[in-house]
Amino acid sequence: MSMSFQAARLAFVAAIASLVRVNAVDNGLARTPQMGWNNWNAFACDVSEELLVQTADLIVGYGLRDLGYEYVVLDDCWSAGRNASNNNTLIPDPIKFPRGMSAVAEDMHVLDLKFGMYSDAGRYTCGMYEGSLGHETTDANTFASWGVDYLKYDNCYNEGYAGNQAISSERYRTMGDALNATGRPILYSLCNWGEDYPWNWGSTIANSWRMSGDIFDMWDKYDARCPCEGKDAWNCELPGFHCSITNIMNKVSFIVSKAQPGAWNDLDMLEVGNGGMTDDEYVAHFSMWSVAKSPLLIGADIRKILPQDLAILNNAAVIAVNQDPMGQSAGRRWMYETEENGPGAIQLWTGNLRSTTGGRWNDMVVLLINGKDRAIEMNATLIDIFSDVRPKGKPAQASMAWEVRDLWADRMSTEKAAAIIAAAKGNSTVPFNATAIAEGRFNTTQTSYADGLKSNSSILLGKVIGTVEPQGNIKATVPKHGAVMYRLRALPSDRNIDEL
Amino acid sequence: MSMSFQAARLAFVAAIASLVRVNAVDNGLARTPQMGWNNWNAFACDVSEELLVQTADLIVGYGLRDLGYEYVVLDDCWSAGRNASNNNTLIPDPIKFPRGMSAVAEDMHVLDLKFGMYSDAGRYTCGMYEGSLGHETTDANTFASWGVDYLKYDNCYNEGYAGNQAISSERYRTMGDALNATGRPILYSLCNWGEDYPWNWGSTIANSWRMSGDIFDMWDKYDARCPCEGKDAWNCELPGFHCSITNIMNKVSFIVSKAQPGAWNDLDMLEVGNGGMTDDEYVAHFSMWSVAKSPLLIGADIRKILPQDLAILNNAAVIAVNQDPMGQSAGRRWMYETEENGPGAIQLWTGNLRSTTGGRWNDMVVLLINGKDRAIEMNATLIDIFSDVRPKGKPAQASMAWEVRDLWADRMSTEKAAAIIAAAKGNSTVPFNATAIAEGRFNTTQTSYADGLKSNSSILLGKVIGTVEPQGNIKATVPKHGAVMYRLRALPSDRNIDEL
Amino acid sequence: MSMSFQAARLAFVAAIASLVRVNAVDNGLARTPQMGWNNWNAFACDVSEELLVQTADLIVGYGLRDLGYEYVVLDDCWSAGRNASNNNTLIPDPIKFPRGMSAVAEDMHVLDLKFGMYSDAGRYTCGMYEGSLGHETTDANTFASWGVDYLKYDNCYNEGYAGNQAISSERYRTMGDALNATGRPILYSLCNWGEDYPWNWGSTIANSWRMSGDIFDMWDKYDARCPCEGKDAWNCELPGFHCSITNIMNKVSFIVSKAQPGAWNDLDMLEVGNGGMTDDEYVAHFSMWSVAKSPLLIGADIRKILPQDLAILNNAAVIAVNQDPMGQSAGRRWMYETEENGPGAIQLWTGNLRSTTGGRWNDMVVLLINGKDRAIEMNATLIDIFSDVRPKGKPAQASMAWEVRDLWADRMSTEKAAAIIAAAKGNSTVPFNATAIAEGRFNTTQTSYADGLKSNSSILLGKVIGTVEPQGNIKATVPKHGAVMYRLRALPSDRNIDEL
Amino acid sequence: MSMSFQAARLAFVAAIASLVRVNAVDNGLARTPQMGWNNWNAFACDVSEELLVQTADLIVGYGLRDLGYEYVVLDDCWSAGRNASNNNTLIPDPIKFPRGMSAVAEDMHVLDLKFGMYSDAGRYTCGMYEGSLGHETTDANTFASWGVDYLKYDNCYNEGYAGNQAISSERYRTMGDALNATGRPILYSLCNWGEDYPWNWGSTIANSWRMSGDIFDMWDKYDARCPCEGKDAWNCELPGFHCSITNIMNKVSFIVSKAQPGAWNDLDMLEVGNGGMTDDEYVAHFSMWSVAKSPLLIGADIRKILPQDLAILNNAAVIAVNQDPMGQSAGRRWMYETEENGPGAIQLWTGNLRSTTGGRWNDMVVLLINGKDRAIEMNATLIDIFSDVRPKGKPAQASMAWEVRDLWADRMSTEKAAAIIAAAKGNSTVPFNATAIAEGRFNTTQTSYADGLKSNSSILLGKVIGTVEPQGNIKATVPKHGAVMYRLRALPSDRNIDEL
Repeated sequence: MSMSFQAARLAFVAAIASLVRVNAVDNGLARTPQMGWNNWNAFACDVSEELLVQTADLIVGYGLRDLGYEYVVLDDCWSAGRNASNNNTLIPDPIKFPRGMSAVAEDMHVLDLKFGMYSDAGRYTCGMYEGSLGHETTDANTFASWGVDYLKYDNCYNEGYAGNQAISSERYRTMGDALNATGRPILYSLCNWGEDYPWNWGSTIANSWRMSGDIFDMWDKYDARCPCEGKDAWNCELPGFHCSITNIMNKVSFIVSKAQPGAWNDLDMLEVGNGGMTDDEYVAHFSMWSVAKSPLLIGADIRKILPQDLAILNNAAVIAVNQDPMGQSAGRRWMYETEENGPGAIQLWTGNLRSTTGGRWNDMVVLLINGKDRAIEMNATLIDIFSDVRPKGKPAQASMAWEVRDLWADRMSTEKAAAIIAAAKGNSTVPFNATAIAEGRFNTTQTSYADGLKSNSSILLGKVIGTVEPQGNIKATVPKHGAVMYRLRALPSDRNIDEL
Repeated sequence: MSMSFQAARLAFVAAIASLVRVNAVDNGLARTPQMGWNNWNAFACDVSEELLVQTADLIVGYGLRDLGYEYVVLDDCWSAGRNASNNNTLIPDPIKFPRGMSAVAEDMHVLDLKFGMYSDAGRYTCGMYEGSLGHETTDANTFASWGVDYLKYDNCYNEGYAGNQAISSERYRTMGDALNATGRPILYSLCNWGEDYPWNWGSTIANSWRMSGDIFDMWDKYDARCPCEGKDAWNCELPGFHCSITNIMNKVSFIVSKAQPGAWNDLDMLEVGNGGMTDDEYVAHFSMWSVAKSPLLIGADIRKILPQDLAILNNAAVIAVNQDPMGQSAGRRWMYETEENGPGAIQLWTGNLRSTTGGRWNDMVVLLINGKDRAIEMNATLIDIFSDVRPKGKPAQASMAWEVRDLWADRMSTEKAAAIIAAAKGNSTVPFNATAIAEGRFNTTQTSYADGLKSNSSILLGKVIGTVEPQGNIKATVPKHGAVMYRLRALPSDRNIDEL
Repeated sequence: MSMSFQAARLAFVAAIASLVRVNAVDNGLARTPQMGWNNWNAFACDVSEELLVQTADLIVGYGLRDLGYEYVVLDDCWSAGRNASNNNTLIPDPIKFPRGMSAVAEDMHVLDLKFGMYSDAGRYTCGMYEGSLGHETTDANTFASWGVDYLKYDNCYNEGYAGNQAISSERYRTMGDALNATGRPILYSLCNWGEDYPWNWGSTIANSWRMSGDIFDMWDKYDARCPCEGKDAWNCELPGFHCSITNIMNKVSFIVSKAQPGAWNDLDMLEVGNGGMTDDEYVAHFSMWSVAKSPLLIGADIRKILPQDLAILNNAAVIAVNQDPMGQSAGRRWMYETEENGPGAIQLWTGNLRSTTGGRWNDMVVLLINGKDRAIEMNATLIDIFSDVRPKGKPAQASMAWEVRDLWADRMSTEKAAAIIAAAKGNSTVPFNATAIAEGRFNTTQTSYADGLKSNSSILLGKVIGTVEPQGNIKATVPKHGAVMYRLRALPSDRNIDEL
Repeated sequence: MSMSFQAARLAFVAAIASLVRVNAVDNGLARTPQMGWNNWNAFACDVSEELLVQTADLIVGYGLRDLGYEYVVLDDCWSAGRNASNNNTLIPDPIKFPRGMSAVAEDMHVLDLKFGMYSDAGRYTCGMYEGSLGHETTDANTFASWGVDYLKYDNCYNEGYAGNQAISSERYRTMGDALNATGRPILYSLCNWGEDYPWNWGSTIANSWRMSGDIFDMWDKYDARCPCEGKDAWNCELPGFHCSITNIMNKVSFIVSKAQPGAWNDLDMLEVGNGGMTDDEYVAHFSMWSVAKSPLLIGADIRKILPQDLAILNNAAVIAVNQDPMGQSAGRRWMYETEENGPGAIQLWTGNLRSTTGGRWNDMVVLLINGKDRAIEMNATLIDIFSDVRPKGKPAQASMAWEVRDLWADRMSTEKAAAIIAAAKGNSTVPFNATAIAEGRFNTTQTSYADGLKSNSSILLGKVIGTVEPQGNIKATVPKHGAVMYRLRALPSDRNIDEL
């Protein structure tokens, strides 16, 4: 093999790795998908200072903060209107938040958490409270003055300023500019449900954008209120709500390339722990959100969370995929809806992760999803796993052997999770923290996922379950409405090979 | 079970109930869907003072006013152009309305009715009379000066100012602002046939918006002039006309969440009494419009209405669902189009109603629709009935027992209806009135639906036909092209239970 | 039956008839669909003064003028650019039109014909000649100064000013206003291929609008360049060209209600005589265009037209349907694509015609279309024929008996047509003329279709072939890729009945 | 046969030939589709002066320049930002391009090649480098000052200025105007992936426009990131990337008529030589791009190209079709997806080429494409081949006999191609050059394709393999995922016939 071919390949790999040069949005935040908690899925409008403070204490106590769940986000229904005698600034509901929002923010900050709030790019919020349309500067300044670190910005009652990318982007850009002008770094999370193709314009305005209607706690039930399905679902002008998790996962399959450091496809807040799905379904749900590089916002009532659900949310090996420093979404390599084994689709998703071997070959995440009503054996060939790499059909990686690591094998036992919950204080046994990536804020034992991966932590890499040979394939029995999730690593012998 | 779990649940239920905080549109009208009569379906352009006055007399005489049918709405074709020597104000047709419109309005007001008129957000009305585009302030002032209480505002000949939410909403907002500026409360009813997604912007402009092309008096016949069907019908840029009632009901299934007090999905005026459908079909039609919280505008010739049709329109138990103070549209829980039992779809719709038991559990309306060409037995499980409640698949309500009440069981007999018609003067035996809700105008024996429901009136609650056990289901034989409609109420033993 | 019911019915019928009150577009032209000839389909850019003059002579000589074919329209490719030293006015090609356009117009006027020309709402015409975008006033004045009576206005090279109704309508309105400002009545024919829903805004701007891509001389062959088919074809953002006649007829089925006096759906110029279809197909084609109230522009080379084709184009009974004074398009009552009798669809179209009986009941046109590859017997029930009349399923007309008249039975014999062609001078045996409707210009023996129909001319009414009984149906053997076309007239006994 | 019929036919043929009168875009470039090389498909961001110079040398050395591959285009990732102290002009990356871009351009010019560069109509390029939105004049001047001859202009990070033809065309027009204002002829190549229908507005702004998402080196694999397929693919608002070559070919089938001299549908850069497809697939790929009149930009690493791939890219007979002076895209005459012979579609494409016989009949290119998984025998009837000619079904050409020439028969042997590569210097045995057409720049032995075709060069006309008789058809065995490509020429006896 000629040297020039080798040089070209090396250069190509380097070039791909260097594709992202500057920040998408200028605020420097969300270099990996944001993590945290939001009250909506479990509480809707039933919000209060007490809820936030209790939740924050438990986020710390259960070790979730130290895993990266950093933002405590208050959703809709917190306001009591505007103060006409004070520049029409927003007023917190004095019953729900008797000490005001600054005090809540301060409580969060004391716990080394961050505080998120909510408003709406319309006349009203979805809950019919005051919206920020026309009040962007005032409200951005108010949020900054309260010490807010995060804004979820919704789309209800938008007065018809929609139906076109230019109109919608302008409406959202106005608030983004206002937030930037405050000087305070505030993570900006668009909640326009995928209307008007936010993946085309969101990345220069904000840190994430919802790309579908609201999630509902179910696997795949069709609901007319979330009407877009299948291969045509990329063009959904009525995003709706009550969307199943497979519906959302299907919709993101079309736009995975839009995710990048600083700017993410938001698949909506997690339902893990809300009781509507089986354990296998929740495992699949968390795995899906992880590989698609969605923000991971816990949507359950932390105060009553079940041990088995905590043991999903605190799986550092799965979180490490989501928080991988390369910041590239996995993509769907195939989906089959054959009638074999009954109705339901099976899918393969794979994606690049930063190499943890010190060689030139990226690690790879592999997610097999079984939508059938029974457990089946599924296959993923190396050709399919690496089908995104040129040349198609003959990727070099398919001719290598790979170590296979099961990312769910080390899931915390229910007993241990129950003990943590019972003690109301976790042992913080997982010394990795997503938020350390951008900030280096923790001067304790916490390590960023990037550093943890670099140091080959087996906590983050999962359990070795075997090897896949060159041109081989991975077989796995996948439970009904479930998933298996693997990390592939180049075997030592292959790490520095020049060519195949 | 822990107290905190119970507290959270209580809080959640309360939060849902308090979601709606402020008026969608500011005029304070239509807190429940408007009710009344409109001449178009039966008379089209054949309008006159005589028609309106005769109809108004019979609306009162047949007891319909006292049921809530309050607005007498004159549709298109009433004008004789503009008066160039008087600021281009609109001139009523002197032959059709020799005394002018103020006199007609006054006639209505004397009868404790309200008067509605019609114009168009275009150069011409659909009937090619003068439109209001560019004359909004003048015309709003004219309507107010005549004592008009309601404006239906159409979409013909709009000069191309459409095709985008921003453009259409601006065109309709102009008239809304002009109406508000008159100082007279005028219910504002958009008639843009669902073009440019009015459910996204209508609620901050108006009290209702048409969400489909014009109704035609038929069950389900396809007509190319109303081309959108099935699961893709949510995105219909050619609304057309000659839409069957099942076509419209399908279209509203996608957007039921947009209905709220003060702002309703308008499914178009009723066809009950116009002769195109069977009695079973009309019963289903009225039931559908009721649960979807459509405005209920009678579209028949009241002067020649048949007794069996009157006995549909005056069913207080069904109207009470439409006028329920919670103001939440039912939603479609499932639709099956299997070939079993022949062609045609079967559907289940359910929705929350304000509790009439004094406990914490909402009542529930259940509508089973049979589109098959023969009577069949249908089933609705509690799981499906309450599938909208979190957690999905395990709603607490499914583990309770419920009283089942048939809302059509107490339908007035044809004999009695015939007697009322013959006397040309109803006995006003139903002392409930929708309009009392917003205004408390009646100081007589009439009671609002809200108060009637609160007082447990069996007239409004329907006839008890049995009980459904926890985890059980409701079975009913549903006629061909027909429906059954039930109200579920928590049994006394369950009314105040904390948990299940 | 009560008198009031009868009165209501009478009123209803009268109301329908009086629906159209004012002109859609203000120029007073095209009260029935325009008729004439256009060179494009047969000659494309191969135009010259000689072609137009020879054609005009034969239009008169073959009796076509006296049937209403009045406009001789010159399509694209006539220009030699703009005259920079004369206000950038358009210059006719001096080789093709050595005497200039005024001379051509005068030639047409001398023959009692009218002269149409062509331009484009873009930078170039479709043939890459100078377009009128930005030159509207100049060009309108030029056309008026030349004595032009008709402008076909195309859509090529529109610089992106499209994709929205507001943008496109503005572009076309500019020329419409400029034409009106000249003071010369110029029929304005939009040729934007149905882009941006011209049926929504065309009627207040122009006299007709193309509603599909360009026609091609074939029955139903799919061509990717005209990609929209079937029930979804109403929403075609790529109108394309090479559209088959059944493709276009399908597309107009969705918007038939938009046709009205002064403003017509334009199905594109006729292909009759261009050799691509069979005689049966051309008969169906001409019948379709007639009932849909399309402008009838002959698209063949008149100088070489075959006798059998002339005998299609000069069928006064079919033209009388197109030129019926009521001006209402027929609609598709059903279309079946069952596999019975092989592939291909069968269709029924019916529509109201002004009564020719002196009674209150409209005449009715019935068109049965057979898209199968073999002749089949078809049925049209009175219920279906009158299904557009309320109440649906029980129209009064279905309970009457009707005279059935075959509109193709009196088609001119090939021998006679050949003789006319040979003589190069028709005998003008058909003394009816569409253009007399609007203008009363002919003081000879010609009579308008309206007057001819009023006088019960059997030439216009077709041949009586039988009677259809109340609740009955019409059976006909329809040839492969063909049509039968009937006029129904109320039988004398039923003409003045009050009710049924 | 009458003389007038003959005259009309002659006139018609002449008229068609003269349809294109003026330049679509005013810069006079790309009268035939541009040819050249672009680094993206093989190298992505791994660019350098060295790469371009080495490639340019080999383009000359392998004889590719003399075949017409003229433009060496540098894609994304070349910039180091803007120079704030020099009017914010763009700065080349000093490591990748140490001598600056002028030097590179000069290197190209010395080799009689032209130099292309890349920017983006957005805030960033797709690789997150500085975009030109808002800097159009500055950047156009910079490119001109560097001696750039070609600009590829991308669509990433466009800030939401999209979603409508008017908005997108304005964004692209701004740069086009800026390029024209420089006075330097710069070929302008839009890369907006078909968004907002650039075929409607691109031709008055630019020389070509991408009409699909990015190509991927595969035959037909579905990828959710390129979601539009089949008959509905004409309306793809999410162009995506990873589009297979058959996906792109399908998409262009709808808009073939938009291609014309100076303004071309761009099917994206070639994958020939990148290793993802079989030899048969690459032959089909190059044939497809040729007949669709796509720009032909080599996308492989020229320095490592395989002999068999060079022997595809240097097939002058196929290039001559692409560079035919008539400049008319072939169209798809049929596509069948029957299950016969297994899954996969078969297609026939044909198109007019300028006559090479001296007679009045155009040559015709015929491309048969086999998407099945096995070789099959395919048929193309003369009726289908000429189905685009009026009258449909009876084209005169179907009644003639035609010489059939195989355009791949004379493909260079692998041995010869290997020898050229080994010598690193081709013998330039093909004395035809596409670029001579527009410029006559070569005063050597090179001849333009137009002149070569006129002189009947067998190199350009392919190998005679037989004759097809009147009303006959062509049979060919087409390999799996492959194509055969023929040129039809009128036989001498038919060349000057008047009629048939």
